[in-house]
Amino acid sequence: MPDKTIKLYDTTLRDGTQAEEVSFSVEDKLRIARCLDGIGIHYIEGGWPGSNPRDAEFFERMRKEKPAFSRLVSFGATRRAHVKAGKDTGLKTMLSSGAPAVCLFGKSWKLHVAKALRVSLDENLEMIHDSVRYLKGRVGEVFYDAEHFFDGFKDDPEYALKTLKAAEEAGADYIVLCDTNGGSLPFDVQRIVSEARAAIAVPLGIHAHNDSETAVANSLVAVKEGAVMVQGTMNGFGERCGNANLCSVIPALKVKMGIDCISDERLKKLRTASRFVYELANMPHLRHQPYVGDAAFAHKGGIHVSAVVRSPETYEHVRPELVGNVQRVIVSDLSGKSNLLYKAAEYGLDISSKAEVVQNLLHELKSLEHQGFQFEGAEASFELLIQKALKRRERYFKLLGFTVIDEKTNEDVPPRSEAAIRLEVNGVVEHTAAEGNGPVNALDAALRKALYRFYPSLKKVRLIDFKVRVVAGAEGTGARVRVLVESGDGVDKWGTVGVSENVIEASWQALVDGLEYKLYKDKVKRDRT
Amino acid sequence: MPDKTIKLYDTTLRDGTQAEEVSFSVEDKLRIARCLDGIGIHYIEGGWPGSNPRDAEFFERMRKEKPAFSRLVSFGATRRAHVKAGKDTGLKTMLSSGAPAVCLFGKSWKLHVAKALRVSLDENLEMIHDSVRYLKGRVGEVFYDAEHFFDGFKDDPEYALKTLKAAEEAGADYIVLCDTNGGSLPFDVQRIVSEARAAIAVPLGIHAHNDSETAVANSLVAVKEGAVMVQGTMNGFGERCGNANLCSVIPALKVKMGIDCISDERLKKLRTASRFVYELANMPHLRHQPYVGDAAFAHKGGIHVSAVVRSPETYEHVRPELVGNVQRVIVSDLSGKSNLLYKAAEYGLDISSKAEVVQNLLHELKSLEHQGFQFEGAEASFELLIQKALKRRERYFKLLGFTVIDEKTNEDVPPRSEAAIRLEVNGVVEHTAAEGNGPVNALDAALRKALYRFYPSLKKVRLIDFKVRVVAGAEGTGARVRVLVESGDGVDKWGTVGVSENVIEASWQALVDGLEYKLYKDKVKRDRT
Repeated sequence: MPDKTIKLYDTTLRDGTQAEEVSFSVEDKLRIARCLDGIGIHYIEGGWPGSNPRDAEFFERMRKEKPAFSRLVSFGATRRAHVKAGKDTGLKTMLSSGAPAVCLFGKSWKLHVAKALRVSLDENLEMIHDSVRYLKGRVGEVFYDAEHFFDGFKDDPEYALKTLKAAEEAGADYIVLCDTNGGSLPFDVQRIVSEARAAIAVPLGIHAHNDSETAVANSLVAVKEGAVMVQGTMNGFGERCGNANLCSVIPALKVKMGIDCISDERLKKLRTASRFVYELANMPHLRHQPYVGDAAFAHKGGIHVSAVVRSPETYEHVRPELVGNVQRVIVSDLSGKSNLLYKAAEYGLDISSKAEVVQNLLHELKSLEHQGFQFEGAEASFELLIQKALKRRERYFKLLGFTVIDEKTNEDVPPRSEAAIRLEVNGVVEHTAAEGNGPVNALDAALRKALYRFYPSLKKVRLIDFKVRVVAGAEGTGARVRVLVESGDGVDKWGTVGVSENVIEASWQALVDGLEYKLYKDKVKRDRT
Repeated sequence: MPDKTIKLYDTTLRDGTQAEEVSFSVEDKLRIARCLDGIGIHYIEGGWPGSNPRDAEFFERMRKEKPAFSRLVSFGATRRAHVKAGKDTGLKTMLSSGAPAVCLFGKSWKLHVAKALRVSLDENLEMIHDSVRYLKGRVGEVFYDAEHFFDGFKDDPEYALKTLKAAEEAGADYIVLCDTNGGSLPFDVQRIVSEARAAIAVPLGIHAHNDSETAVANSLVAVKEGAVMVQGTMNGFGERCGNANLCSVIPALKVKMGIDCISDERLKKLRTASRFVYELANMPHLRHQPYVGDAAFAHKGGIHVSAVVRSPETYEHVRPELVGNVQRVIVSDLSGKSNLLYKAAEYGLDISSKAEVVQNLLHELKSLEHQGFQFEGAEASFELLIQKALKRRERYFKLLGFTVIDEKTNEDVPPRSEAAIRLEVNGVVEHTAAEGNGPVNALDAALRKALYRFYPSLKKVRLIDFKVRVVAGAEGTGARVRVLVESGDGVDKWGTVGVSENVIEASWQALVDGLEYKLYKDKVKRDRT
């Protein structure tokens, strides 16, 4: 294997959202883009700005953010048939996104040219050529995604290669071979990438789908045969069976194939990034997911346990720490502890010398995780938890009680929701009530109203997002739910979490953490100045 | 590729139960064995009779059942060190299981010989040889599983091959190369299987784990290099990240590689078998699972739909019918008329001639989508909507009113939730109340309680899953929420949806649709008979 580098190209924000249940708000997309930037993804495909207003807004807002590492890519199709590239609104929209790179897709399979595009084979070649050339003169980098390339090559290798040459001659910076239907097996990919490699001088990429459960393998085989860009998604999100899972591709490239594509430090953030994306998609993490899943390094078989403790390489294909995961033979204090110290250090807290605090925290965390708490996306709650273990957490108020009522009196009109709350601050009792759109909104409104008198800075706090998920999906409305709240004060944003069998209780916990975090944060700022 | 046959070897009942959350009763194991027999698996590994009483009982009960097609296999380890094979209780137990074939595992990796077995390299070879020879004289077929073969080969190819030769000389019928830690990549497997093939005359098998997300690919590559037995599990169940998923291996072998391993008729049962095993494991089916998952042939992107209907091969790697699955066009961005007609046709409704109905439906859908409705995963609500447009939807009850109260009186105790409901069926008023874990659970309980008297079949309906998400994530608890409910009656499952700014209202809509769909479905069945 020659010593080479590979460009990582993430399309979670575009292809990933084609998954049936995945839908990201603009705010979610911005947060994911920052996360991908943080783990050192080279290219982030932000969306197809011509296809929907949400993607257009995302690019608009990204102009004000400069990713530290990644380059943003906008996606789009070749020009329409029989239209000049300069007159094509799709191409114009790709450019007007302001992204420094664009990814253009076109057709390589005769069947699609005839049945989907309904143009002549020559017109298709011109559409590719014109579009690439037009874009190339107007933006930093142009990638060409050859849709259905493998199926096209199996059908007619000569024509499929011609479509690549059209992109090459027009100046494409990378040509990406797509297995759009996900039907190719590793030996198909091996043979076809090798033939494309021989015919094309421009650097090649691979874009695999997982319909044969071989997307990761196909991506790695393509790299072995000379591809130097891998397109995929976090956790393999994508239409039908998903795309190549970057969370499995990246560690294989880096650790197993020795290819320089991500720093050691960034690789350690992989598990956290994987979970972050699941959280924003409001989906449960896949326990058995390779490398980053909870079960990926869990050892159940009795005979394994002593051996794996003595020499982990006997039963682990890579060290879990490399990807930020942990061995879970016995939930050993060491593995939990190093994780915790690492996490606390992220908040600027060195608690390594405080054995009792660490012990209490580990105990508390274990109990909370058992209840269904998870702190990815709820780091404000985690920070408050550390403050509590350090006996530094202040109580800003004491709840005396609340009542929430939803009353529906007409089939066609939503219920009226009202909350009454009674609480105490420094011996002063406040008793008030508020209405809202639904019980949680009413409770939120009543809680704020009661607290404003004592803590006017809370007026700045806004609830940005609110997510509810059943923790174990087997008991319907009676199951345990996790509520994730995102709050902001115009300067910062923070996430908090609550868990209970009662959604009102879980919401209450997350709301209270959200407001208390604001007061805690203000205090930290005051203490600093 | 030579025209050859492949033996399918299922270890769901042994390796599959190593998955953290999988646990089968003896009865479950018997039912799964019958299911595997029904789809034409050649060998069913029933368990390790020496390791636990449940496996021993399974073999005991299987003696009274004669699988029509499959052969049962019992699993076990090579003899202990420095003990005669005839004196080894493990080997005796394998035989006493009464299974017509046995699978013996032994060590190929020097590291394991030294660290796990703690015997000399020569003693390990003798343990393999003695055990195979002892078994071979006493049972129909003996398979030898070379544990950690790929890691062992990378470490010391000569010694790894010596362990295979020990099994070969002693008369093993198949020698199975195991990637026990799941760390091998397809090109490793390609090279190493090819070298083993050159050194060994006995037929080879492959046993892959999925820690690198390449178990299916590795299995197929091994077959391409000459392996003639594939060991795997249904749905890829197994320790850590699972085993090679036979539900993906089988269709690839049969449909893509043209290898005779299962009949066309049996292949059509694959999806049902996959779901059956999930059900017995009490696990949700993986939506995105290749070939057999609900999303495997689901099409969302608007541009795809018209093309995929015209010519399915444009966007499907295999025909879903081959594995018992179906093409699904997802109801998303339904604004397109062709989408709508296609969807209606799925429910056996030809509305193409009813221009007014179609027009009304399109109008209604557009307005609902604007409000935040999405019918992905909520197809029962969509079907009810069509019934409404056709003016065929029945009203089963009229709501007169409900009140839900959540009362929290103690900071450390979750609120008490109670719902009171008043409704009318055919002039009869029912007024009742119920408690629940949270307001929605209480409302659900009260609604059912009120309706059971009129519609006893609703007692069979269970809430399977309940999901809430904010539609536009910019307004916190005051934003519009979408509630997705999954209900089931032991026979079918169906999803319903509700949208409102008030989570109680949205839940109410989805709950009502869920119950009304059951009544509608029962009526359709009655009308048919």
